[in-house]
Amino acid sequence: MQEHTSATSQPEEGAEKQAKGNAPLTARGEATRRRILDVAEEVFGEIGYYEASVSEITRRAKVAQGTFYIYFPTKRDIFAELVRDLSQQLRGALRQATAGSADRLETERRGFKSFFSFVASHRGLYRIVQEAERVAPEAAQEYYQGISQGYIRGLRSAMSEGTVRDMEPEPLAYALMGIGHFVALRYLIWPADSQEESAQIHDLPPEVFETLMSFIEQGLSQPAHKDTPK
Amino acid sequence: MQEHTSATSQPEEGAEKQAKGNAPLTARGEATRRRILDVAEEVFGEIGYYEASVSEITRRAKVAQGTFYIYFPTKRDIFAELVRDLSQQLRGALRQATAGSADRLETERRGFKSFFSFVASHRGLYRIVQEAERVAPEAAQEYYQGISQGYIRGLRSAMSEGTVRDMEPEPLAYALMGIGHFVALRYLIWPADSQEESAQIHDLPPEVFETLMSFIEQGLSQPAHKDTPK
Repeated sequence: MQEHTSATSQPEEGAEKQAKGNAPLTARGEATRRRILDVAEEVFGEIGYYEASVSEITRRAKVAQGTFYIYFPTKRDIFAELVRDLSQQLRGALRQATAGSADRLETERRGFKSFFSFVASHRGLYRIVQEAERVAPEAAQEYYQGISQGYIRGLRSAMSEGTVRDMEPEPLAYALMGIGHFVALRYLIWPADSQEESAQIHDLPPEVFETLMSFIEQGLSQPAHKDTPK
Repeated sequence: MQEHTSATSQPEEGAEKQAKGNAPLTARGEATRRRILDVAEEVFGEIGYYEASVSEITRRAKVAQGTFYIYFPTKRDIFAELVRDLSQQLRGALRQATAGSADRLETERRGFKSFFSFVASHRGLYRIVQEAERVAPEAAQEYYQGISQGYIRGLRSAMSEGTVRDMEPEPLAYALMGIGHFVALRYLIWPADSQEESAQIHDLPPEVFETLMSFIEQGLSQPAHKDTPK
């Protein structure tokens, strides 16, 4: 799992820093908005979109309801915005983790490690993105497409360098995302759900991680010469 | 994607054929229960667990509410039962599709084809299983674990025959399930969602399917001799 490292600034990041009225936020406004989003991640992750209320979010974030509505007109708006925010955070983590990798294999190793650690520290992520597929499908698709686009760029560039064999990059990107998603579900999300609220599972068992890496590495690499031609 | 072919009868199938009172169902009772489940798949898939009501299901299935409650005590019960039923249907389809495969590669090809065709003809499947992760988590885990167990058995047996190299079978099973899940999401579910209600996308583009198969085949197979030892 990886994110293409790019020096160009992303236009959506500028837009992110503005409140709904399109006025740029002050540093203090930015901090308030950030706090509301972090609390929303907690609330939506714990009790789900349908049960969650704006008043529960403002209570935990210690802001007035009037303040909340300056930043987010409706419950659905903050939910969709949270999904976008989580996507940006995850992509930022992947970019940072994979920058300066020596080769494609190292990029995959670092990217997957970073993804699993992001999932472990954002316990509500899966529930939020899954609910978004019904509540705010455009935000859910943006979430996955944002990740896939970076992945596709990275695979294309590894293919043109010859470190990954020529294949269709988009289905490959979704295949690799699917691997990360399901393995995290099995080894991070389910075990944490069945334990105490405070229990945290931070890492995959090493043999699980090595199995994935071995499968992915061999699947992506140029085929070695075989004795029997195909 | 595959399901282990087994000649032993599965105990849960016997249990399935009984109503809640543990009295075996008549053929007519079985048909009514089946019709209610099929309609429930339609209703939960279209409008979701929270919006769906027992009265909407009985109205569309043309049964009295009293009849419904003979089979399913609550909305949550029929929802959990539907998830188990879909899991059994999918595993049955995989078993049938992969029975008699010549080798592991053919098993994977037939299994993935069968999975994609099941997803295309059960448009509500993803939404239902995803909502189950919150509403009936035990049923959602059973759904995935039922599929993974067949997969693990199949991989182990291919490993002992030497057609798949030795790796940890469980993470590999989840990796392969993840590939199927995400590729179906990208190429079957999203395109269908964005089109007319009546539009059906039945198949992956062939180059997408071949990319997956090539990646999986090379990833699973015994490594060819390389010029440079590892």
